[in-house]
Amino acid sequence: MGCMRIVVLAGGIGGARFLLGVRAHAKTIGAEVTAIVNVGDDVWMHGLRICPDLDSVMYTLGDGIDPDRQWGRKNESWNVKEELAAYGAEPTWFGLGDRDIATHLVRSTMLAAGEPLSAITARLCQRWQPGITVLPASDDRVETHVVIQDRAIHFQEWWVRHKAELPAKRFVFLGADSAKPAAGVLDALNAADVVLFAPSNPVVSIAPILAIPGIKEAFKAPVVGVSPIIGGAAVRGMAEKCLSAIGVECSAAGVGGLYAPMLKAWLVDPVDAQAEVPGVNVVPTPLWMTDEAATVGMVQAALRSAE
Amino acid sequence: MGCMRIVVLAGGIGGARFLLGVRAHAKTIGAEVTAIVNVGDDVWMHGLRICPDLDSVMYTLGDGIDPDRQWGRKNESWNVKEELAAYGAEPTWFGLGDRDIATHLVRSTMLAAGEPLSAITARLCQRWQPGITVLPASDDRVETHVVIQDRAIHFQEWWVRHKAELPAKRFVFLGADSAKPAAGVLDALNAADVVLFAPSNPVVSIAPILAIPGIKEAFKAPVVGVSPIIGGAAVRGMAEKCLSAIGVECSAAGVGGLYAPMLKAWLVDPVDAQAEVPGVNVVPTPLWMTDEAATVGMVQAALRSAE
Repeated sequence: MGCMRIVVLAGGIGGARFLLGVRAHAKTIGAEVTAIVNVGDDVWMHGLRICPDLDSVMYTLGDGIDPDRQWGRKNESWNVKEELAAYGAEPTWFGLGDRDIATHLVRSTMLAAGEPLSAITARLCQRWQPGITVLPASDDRVETHVVIQDRAIHFQEWWVRHKAELPAKRFVFLGADSAKPAAGVLDALNAADVVLFAPSNPVVSIAPILAIPGIKEAFKAPVVGVSPIIGGAAVRGMAEKCLSAIGVECSAAGVGGLYAPMLKAWLVDPVDAQAEVPGVNVVPTPLWMTDEAATVGMVQAALRSAE
Repeated sequence: MGCMRIVVLAGGIGGARFLLGVRAHAKTIGAEVTAIVNVGDDVWMHGLRICPDLDSVMYTLGDGIDPDRQWGRKNESWNVKEELAAYGAEPTWFGLGDRDIATHLVRSTMLAAGEPLSAITARLCQRWQPGITVLPASDDRVETHVVIQDRAIHFQEWWVRHKAELPAKRFVFLGADSAKPAAGVLDALNAADVVLFAPSNPVVSIAPILAIPGIKEAFKAPVVGVSPIIGGAAVRGMAEKCLSAIGVECSAAGVGGLYAPMLKAWLVDPVDAQAEVPGVNVVPTPLWMTDEAATVGMVQAALRSAE
């Protein structure tokens, strides 16, 4: 019998921190881990292809993330951004650090040469050595746009520029209909012993992955989700505003309900122990990822509940 | 009678420093200045279009140049370059500063949007306010390549990576045959009262401009050249190696001879007062651009000898 194979669907910061725990536990038990990472946040800016979730995962697992901001590179400088602003080059509201830009330059150059994002991500990971396989959900362009009052804007504009303060009517995953899972994604899902949903934003991190035809259909192993909501509030980010836009209650039960048809088990924090998700085994376990040991505890609980 | 119109053909550092003097003198006499700048050094690196000579002119006249290096931006940082090297992204031998990269990002984004280099240069100059009109010699791709032993390499690779140490057989201005003068170039030449050749490298700064069909033919005003060679040595750079490759003596007379059919007058340093250029008025005048006042003196001598 081979080693256990764990596949994790993940978004940005929450996903990256969860993956730290998955990697640590996988090392202990000799498991292999594949992360399927959201590409809905990806965006072109200043001619550069920026993949915030892939980079958050890669930098976090490669010890390159800024620990205070929890995005971008540590020891970062901001001279390019300052100069772009001096030229009046829009947009000026996006955090584009100097070190970070090198990643985007390598990626954009390879994209221009015709390489798929999955191959580019593998190339970037040669440097970061994340200790797991990091795959984009798709090699095709899938972009989350937000329908506001009278138009649709890129998710980054809504999230970063407007701080999610413009009421969102709905989210559109542009390109998802015709996108294919990236190279390696279906193979990983087919070989998986368990599929975990990281405690990422359900509306704009996990949903864009699930919107790619073929991914949900490839869930053969048991699926266990981890709630990103504790006591009715998002652990980080602005999931409330995303959930309210799609008419889902911001609660562990609400998000669990979204995923219910796919789930075998749903991990909620003990404060949400009363949450009910029809047809799903709700498992209370501490969900604050205060350090790697705490996160490992979550992963252990998730794997137990998959059995 | 309108103001005097001065057109200067220029390359990188030498051209930029000369233009400081031209601008200062033009302000005194109320003249208008247009620089036609070499694009032969231009190169794509890491997906960015880099125009070293245009940038040297723009940064120098806009007080953004590093005064010690005499290329690139002052207060520069090098984090992108360090990160590109950490990714193993080639080339690693080119000096790509963080602040400088912002210029290349703006330019490359505009090129991708279909803007001509002349319009892009005008846009960049809105920030730098050089006080003169800065035009690329061509909006088309004209690139200097160097034929060495068994192949041709981009001028930047020969110059920066190999420090001009690989014996050059000849220089090829790729694309020059079918290139057109950039928007504004012929108008400036047609309206000029005098055309000056800056003391730039004759082989790889001035020659690629002259190689563009239509430019030489538009010299209606008197042409005055300024020798980049003083006492048999290049004031800066590695012009000797370029001149020897094309079989021209590294001397004020040698370079003057190259330009002779176009010249009315040829400024040489007093140490080269004996230089003879058949058919050309050789004018000894101090050519060390030690400060702006010294350079203004050169410009005054050049304008006098055009009369």
